[in-house]
Amino acid sequence: MSAQWIDNQKNLMLFSGRGNPALGEAVARELGVQLTPTTARDFANGEIFVRFEESVRGCDAFVLQSHTQPLNKWLMEQLIMIDALKRGSAKRITAILPFYPYARQDKKHRGREPISARLVADMLKAAGADRIVSVDLHTDQIQGFFDGPVDHMHAMPILTEHIKKNYSLENICVVSPDAGRVKVAEKWANTLGGAPMAFVHKTRSVDVANQVTANRVVGDVAGRTCVLLDDMIDTGGTISGAVGVLREAGAGDVIIATTHGVFSGPARERLSRCGAREVIATDTLPQNTDGWDNLTVLSIAPLLAKTIHEIFENGSVTTLFEGQA
Amino acid sequence: MSAQWIDNQKNLMLFSGRGNPALGEAVARELGVQLTPTTARDFANGEIFVRFEESVRGCDAFVLQSHTQPLNKWLMEQLIMIDALKRGSAKRITAILPFYPYARQDKKHRGREPISARLVADMLKAAGADRIVSVDLHTDQIQGFFDGPVDHMHAMPILTEHIKKNYSLENICVVSPDAGRVKVAEKWANTLGGAPMAFVHKTRSVDVANQVTANRVVGDVAGRTCVLLDDMIDTGGTISGAVGVLREAGAGDVIIATTHGVFSGPARERLSRCGAREVIATDTLPQNTDGWDNLTVLSIAPLLAKTIHEIFENGSVTTLFEGQA
Amino acid sequence: MSAQWIDNQKNLMLFSGRGNPALGEAVARELGVQLTPTTARDFANGEIFVRFEESVRGCDAFVLQSHTQPLNKWLMEQLIMIDALKRGSAKRITAILPFYPYARQDKKHRGREPISARLVADMLKAAGADRIVSVDLHTDQIQGFFDGPVDHMHAMPILTEHIKKNYSLENICVVSPDAGRVKVAEKWANTLGGAPMAFVHKTRSVDVANQVTANRVVGDVAGRTCVLLDDMIDTGGTISGAVGVLREAGAGDVIIATTHGVFSGPARERLSRCGAREVIATDTLPQNTDGWDNLTVLSIAPLLAKTIHEIFENGSVTTLFEGQA
Amino acid sequence: MSAQWIDNQKNLMLFSGRGNPALGEAVARELGVQLTPTTARDFANGEIFVRFEESVRGCDAFVLQSHTQPLNKWLMEQLIMIDALKRGSAKRITAILPFYPYARQDKKHRGREPISARLVADMLKAAGADRIVSVDLHTDQIQGFFDGPVDHMHAMPILTEHIKKNYSLENICVVSPDAGRVKVAEKWANTLGGAPMAFVHKTRSVDVANQVTANRVVGDVAGRTCVLLDDMIDTGGTISGAVGVLREAGAGDVIIATTHGVFSGPARERLSRCGAREVIATDTLPQNTDGWDNLTVLSIAPLLAKTIHEIFENGSVTTLFEGQA
Amino acid sequence: MSAQWIDNQKNLMLFSGRGNPALGEAVARELGVQLTPTTARDFANGEIFVRFEESVRGCDAFVLQSHTQPLNKWLMEQLIMIDALKRGSAKRITAILPFYPYARQDKKHRGREPISARLVADMLKAAGADRIVSVDLHTDQIQGFFDGPVDHMHAMPILTEHIKKNYSLENICVVSPDAGRVKVAEKWANTLGGAPMAFVHKTRSVDVANQVTANRVVGDVAGRTCVLLDDMIDTGGTISGAVGVLREAGAGDVIIATTHGVFSGPARERLSRCGAREVIATDTLPQNTDGWDNLTVLSIAPLLAKTIHEIFENGSVTTLFEGQA
Amino acid sequence: MSAQWIDNQKNLMLFSGRGNPALGEAVARELGVQLTPTTARDFANGEIFVRFEESVRGCDAFVLQSHTQPLNKWLMEQLIMIDALKRGSAKRITAILPFYPYARQDKKHRGREPISARLVADMLKAAGADRIVSVDLHTDQIQGFFDGPVDHMHAMPILTEHIKKNYSLENICVVSPDAGRVKVAEKWANTLGGAPMAFVHKTRSVDVANQVTANRVVGDVAGRTCVLLDDMIDTGGTISGAVGVLREAGAGDVIIATTHGVFSGPARERLSRCGAREVIATDTLPQNTDGWDNLTVLSIAPLLAKTIHEIFENGSVTTLFEGQA
Repeated sequence: MSAQWIDNQKNLMLFSGRGNPALGEAVARELGVQLTPTTARDFANGEIFVRFEESVRGCDAFVLQSHTQPLNKWLMEQLIMIDALKRGSAKRITAILPFYPYARQDKKHRGREPISARLVADMLKAAGADRIVSVDLHTDQIQGFFDGPVDHMHAMPILTEHIKKNYSLENICVVSPDAGRVKVAEKWANTLGGAPMAFVHKTRSVDVANQVTANRVVGDVAGRTCVLLDDMIDTGGTISGAVGVLREAGAGDVIIATTHGVFSGPARERLSRCGAREVIATDTLPQNTDGWDNLTVLSIAPLLAKTIHEIFENGSVTTLFEGQA
Repeated sequence: MSAQWIDNQKNLMLFSGRGNPALGEAVARELGVQLTPTTARDFANGEIFVRFEESVRGCDAFVLQSHTQPLNKWLMEQLIMIDALKRGSAKRITAILPFYPYARQDKKHRGREPISARLVADMLKAAGADRIVSVDLHTDQIQGFFDGPVDHMHAMPILTEHIKKNYSLENICVVSPDAGRVKVAEKWANTLGGAPMAFVHKTRSVDVANQVTANRVVGDVAGRTCVLLDDMIDTGGTISGAVGVLREAGAGDVIIATTHGVFSGPARERLSRCGAREVIATDTLPQNTDGWDNLTVLSIAPLLAKTIHEIFENGSVTTLFEGQA
Repeated sequence: MSAQWIDNQKNLMLFSGRGNPALGEAVARELGVQLTPTTARDFANGEIFVRFEESVRGCDAFVLQSHTQPLNKWLMEQLIMIDALKRGSAKRITAILPFYPYARQDKKHRGREPISARLVADMLKAAGADRIVSVDLHTDQIQGFFDGPVDHMHAMPILTEHIKKNYSLENICVVSPDAGRVKVAEKWANTLGGAPMAFVHKTRSVDVANQVTANRVVGDVAGRTCVLLDDMIDTGGTISGAVGVLREAGAGDVIIATTHGVFSGPARERLSRCGAREVIATDTLPQNTDGWDNLTVLSIAPLLAKTIHEIFENGSVTTLFEGQA
Repeated sequence: MSAQWIDNQKNLMLFSGRGNPALGEAVARELGVQLTPTTARDFANGEIFVRFEESVRGCDAFVLQSHTQPLNKWLMEQLIMIDALKRGSAKRITAILPFYPYARQDKKHRGREPISARLVADMLKAAGADRIVSVDLHTDQIQGFFDGPVDHMHAMPILTEHIKKNYSLENICVVSPDAGRVKVAEKWANTLGGAPMAFVHKTRSVDVANQVTANRVVGDVAGRTCVLLDDMIDTGGTISGAVGVLREAGAGDVIIATTHGVFSGPARERLSRCGAREVIATDTLPQNTDGWDNLTVLSIAPLLAKTIHEIFENGSVTTLFEGQA
Repeated sequence: MSAQWIDNQKNLMLFSGRGNPALGEAVARELGVQLTPTTARDFANGEIFVRFEESVRGCDAFVLQSHTQPLNKWLMEQLIMIDALKRGSAKRITAILPFYPYARQDKKHRGREPISARLVADMLKAAGADRIVSVDLHTDQIQGFFDGPVDHMHAMPILTEHIKKNYSLENICVVSPDAGRVKVAEKWANTLGGAPMAFVHKTRSVDVANQVTANRVVGDVAGRTCVLLDDMIDTGGTISGAVGVLREAGAGDVIIATTHGVFSGPARERLSRCGAREVIATDTLPQNTDGWDNLTVLSIAPLLAKTIHEIFENGSVTTLFEGQA
Repeated sequence: MSAQWIDNQKNLMLFSGRGNPALGEAVARELGVQLTPTTARDFANGEIFVRFEESVRGCDAFVLQSHTQPLNKWLMEQLIMIDALKRGSAKRITAILPFYPYARQDKKHRGREPISARLVADMLKAAGADRIVSVDLHTDQIQGFFDGPVDHMHAMPILTEHIKKNYSLENICVVSPDAGRVKVAEKWANTLGGAPMAFVHKTRSVDVANQVTANRVVGDVAGRTCVLLDDMIDTGGTISGAVGVLREAGAGDVIIATTHGVFSGPARERLSRCGAREVIATDTLPQNTDGWDNLTVLSIAPLLAKTIHEIFENGSVTTLFEGQA
């Protein structure tokens, strides 16, 4: 035999983009590894340059990026990191997108529109990603946009655990802010002890296309502590409006819970003043609680670290999030 | 110049699988063309053989199949037809799946499951389909599973037109049979004059995983004519159960409306006897009204024919279904 | 260095579709492993659902399916299993198709036909199969339809071993039932001690296209024990006809040997009564000897198990079947 | 509407490699077009350079190459021409390979071998070919190696027409030089009035692997005019050996017919002296009859020209070769 | 025949991203078409939304974007537009990138770096672009990064025409600001009447890695009017430094000419004050001459319009830029 | 758990084509392995046949070929070897092309030309190569033509080491033979102690397109020892012409240094007589010093062996060539 044999080992390397360096550090700490030293900077015209300071040959690479503003830049940075890993001979590349960008564009609402969430999956593939990890995709079907394994993690256990610890479940009601999230609300209701449900129904004008004329609550919320949930909160318009509608319908305390606190533009102002007792979010996107009294931020880092560990050691990720389903 | 020039023409050819020959004939009639003569038969061991009796070279091919039982066979037949068209030099191949098979498997509910709806899209692509036409996909996101144009048509205008003609909209209420269809029900409610809404909420046991302990109606249905809708009805268990729950909650007449009347096994029995005044479905799947008194079948053929016509002539499909949105 | 290192191990997991569970069990037994527990069932409308009950992350997966009737269903089930393995992060996926479906459609006999055997290869690839194992492909060229490794095993050693044990080679003659199998018959003749050969020649009418007017034996079979072989026997029409022609030509005993006993429709009847002394087949497809006296079934399971073992341990598969060539 | 409209025309352009310029000219003449002026030359180190002297933008390109010696060079030249057409915006590219190179390597005979015929198909695809035209592929299955349309033409009508004109069919016998071509011989036998058949059987030694110990004729050839056929004749060893075996078996005149006269090395000598009355070949490869008295060359150019014409005008190619099947 | 025939027409549609709307308008004006009305806006978190207001089915689409700051955003917008066109059934999609982003990252300078210019090509392909048009790529080889036609246009004729009109060629000298552009400078020198050449050579320290210790002019520039050229000028550091070195070497007037005036950060200041008599650039990127006295902007719109016209009508693009080479 | 576990090992196997067997042997010797025994021969018509004599299942394969004349044949041989490895289940395939063929065709110089260097990369990919190793690509951008890792090694350290040992650096000057290599010359100049630079400028006629009218030296070479370098020397016309121009400009000794000594046709004669004191080349292509007095050949084998070793053991290749950059 002419072959030369050696034992095969594998090594985990963790890379973080510049979207949310604190999250990268937190995940590394949980994993007990160090982030691979990486040079990343912008050329004067905005082009991004990336170089890794250690050999990545043969490694099992995990590339974490947080898709906050400027979102397109951080997406491009992650793609460039993946390209550099592919060309640097990484053995397997896992892209971690705690908040999956463009997830709301997961279908054509009307003709001649893009499906940008699929485009993002195709770009990750084209760059060289072998697999994806994400948290609370806007719709579960986005898993099917990627031609490969997608580990879809859920923040619900983290969020409901907090609610269970801080509120009585006796008088709770789970509310979806619109018709599209009722299914998710049903899962929460079951997790929170079989709580009753409600949702806010948008009535549109018959005369004027797409003009919303009124919102009304479907279901009974009077006197109840309402858990109002959404996968993401962007400008906070819908959700703070829902708080108002619930209050008019006689609700008691309102708690807002969301995985992805995008909190663009007026969100901070709206959510502080909308009358909700607490706004609970995770740090899939960077959060700043300074001067925002009713905001609670729970860390997603332990969940991501456990997921990475299971992927690296070929354990089961399923067990991480199915316990309470 | 050494080139030889001729004018470029294009020709439409329509092909029908054996899943529902009557639908193929109806679409051809609407289009004013004839189905391309096709030999299709089964070998003794179940392998399908297909051959077209006319040259397909350079044609704009539309391959219609109805995915009724035995569903896997008809899917394979359609793939084989597409392969034969590709190898026979058809210029463009459009696969028409009025009922998209495996649409319910559009995500991983738990770990180690397939996403068969994506697999179907990949198989159509691998066989050679350039584009897809379908009606009322189980979720809109399935559009994004295919790497190419998907014309997603809606039967709602056909179904609501029938309701408008036959029922008073005064006292109507739109009901989703479960939490996952509330968004669609909202569209119907807006189309039906801003009708109120309700849905049936499944409460699960806290002690026993996944055991449904009770169904209750969220929303007010007392005394109202309920339009209970779903994209597809398979065995009819959920929907006939919902009729019962609505009746208990004091509903008036219940009308069931669905695009895809799969009507497997006990469905016919259940829906005849569940107390619904009328069951409305289309013929995306072959239907048989013999001995089923409260079933009304509306034909999807005109919609498919118009869609094919617009695709062939590069017109706008959007106008076919957006008028009432 | 920021990387975390561990030793790399690999694990073999064996999965069986529902086409022939007994074969799956037999292969597992030979390998000394257990089949991975798998939930597989049909929805009411015929859609197949599959879920694995153990984590498959990182495994070296072998997916065995037997493509018996309803053939398209079992093919689809295997594709769905492969999709689930791909999305569940199996490291490498080997599809085992002891009987390769649609193998007879390996070329266009005339224009506007599919090449369904290539389509099957493309579908396996699209679903996520990295490699294929099959037994006695209808033509060797089908190996080239798949873009990856194909381990093409041969049942000839198993079948000829049986003949050598049970018959005298003195007076043997190897016969191909038609002109297309003469090359294979030559291999058998060499293996069976340099036996003489013959084949049945179909004479077609000059006047009527494709009408077979007569069969005649080319080669001398008078008084000889004829081994009549084919890769597969479907309805048994050709092969039982060949027995008759051989008998008319003065042949002695006729032994029929085939790898794939499809035995559709009238095959059982025809082969029992055609006058052959023994019909020898393997269990690449499920067999039932009840009430069929002259049928002998030899198991393919040991060969499949050895092949899987060599693939898993990176041994040589070539040695398994080249010894006697 | 913001679009600007024009009529769509298409133009045929024919390109010829340097493998057999005379064939390119002949096909152009038959089609009534001129070969597109092309610069093609070799750099000093053997790299090929190609440039077209006219714009190819939007054309329907047909790229003819004859794969004679040095075969790898002409294959590479054809690939480079296809790449240049792709990058020069040709609309559709049809590669014409009258003799498909590496066709004999269409399967793995043993382990660790390439399937070079599939590799050739993959390379054509990678370079940018949309479709292939070839004549008498070594096996029909090679059609399935290419992921797209393959027009597989047959020279049999040309060759048999010549035989019918020059020989009496009364006493004819069709002979395959080995076991692998008996199926093709059967087609010829049917075309030549239902002639009887025979083949030469190679008996291998039981003791020494792969050593041929004797050839014998299976079938009755005594006193008959034998048409000995093969798809290609390379060095002529097998075929001239077969002439000898036929003569020993008492055959009358022997006529050799082949599509692809490769005629390497000693072929010219062997075939001139083997005792065959006539050797009939086509010019899929360049032929030289000088000093070779019993060689007859029939031109393939009219068949290729008709095929190109039908492809360009989207006619049926099937009719060109199925008339006599 | 069962087919329905119509004449085939094709229509040009022009789309412009928001990077430089004025350029889009200018190109449309030159072409005599209108830009297709397009809705494009940003969600609050930075996600881009695009929708076309007219049917794009079957059109020959040209998607123009100018990659100015924020560059990653405009690149993503162009990709999203292409995705929307693909899914909206455009027949052919040409991406026009007058300034190709990330062109400077066209190779790995050291290990573990990306090749971002290839990544951009792959992303355009993944989104659905069939072809690319660009102007003065940083290196010609970038053409080879895209798997399809790339029309690579040159601004040199526009720039040199301006120089010929405004300066005497008698005493001119063409200067490359670094060693990598000498080849391009040679082309300019030949176009400008066989002018002499020079370049600025960076001498690096032997002791300190990558530290430039001195620049010196190679070639004779004393008393000459120097045309200092570069494909792009970003911050202007290199080029304004080169002006200084030329002045020290005794040069006369210095004219700076560039295709892509990126002009980031201090560029405006540096170039205004560096002592160059004129800075000539095109509008491949949006330019602002307000308060910048020595800047001359020449429009690239006529060249782009002619290129689009030739592509649409299948004319020759080569003639547009080879006349003066 | 149903899985069977084993430790994972990996094995290096080295394969050599027939282009330069001596180089293959030298690399094997450096690595301390043996070349895997391989059968490679030509069929009479020039088709290449390859078979490996040992199992390659699961190996880490390195396939070395030297692309000397007949270059297209050796390229095809390497592709066939890669195909055989892919189909024989090699785990990873690295193609080693010390001299990358068709590297000079890395862009379209004018319209309707191929980019053959990209075609070569696509063919390697299509055949099954996972990665490429090459030495001194004609342009660095060729790295971006391959969709995967490319380890681009440099011979400069080997060549400059030889110069440093044999010549005084005091009076040295680095010269590029044309404008396109000035950047590379600058790297050499920095490596050789910050030597001054020059290049030969081709002046073209204004009247006659592409006619070179004169060459002149830009930079000061009088009295200096000139190191005239190029990545490859083919017929030696440019380089020996440059020696003459340098001599006329008063240069002292001229040393020619090149990585790839193609030395076609008149090269040997020209370079022996052009007046250069020494011609230094490596053996990326087979060299013959017999009767060529001023030729020095330095071996590339140690560099290739170290590169293979680092790839196999997942070490860093960067360190092999960046030390002196």
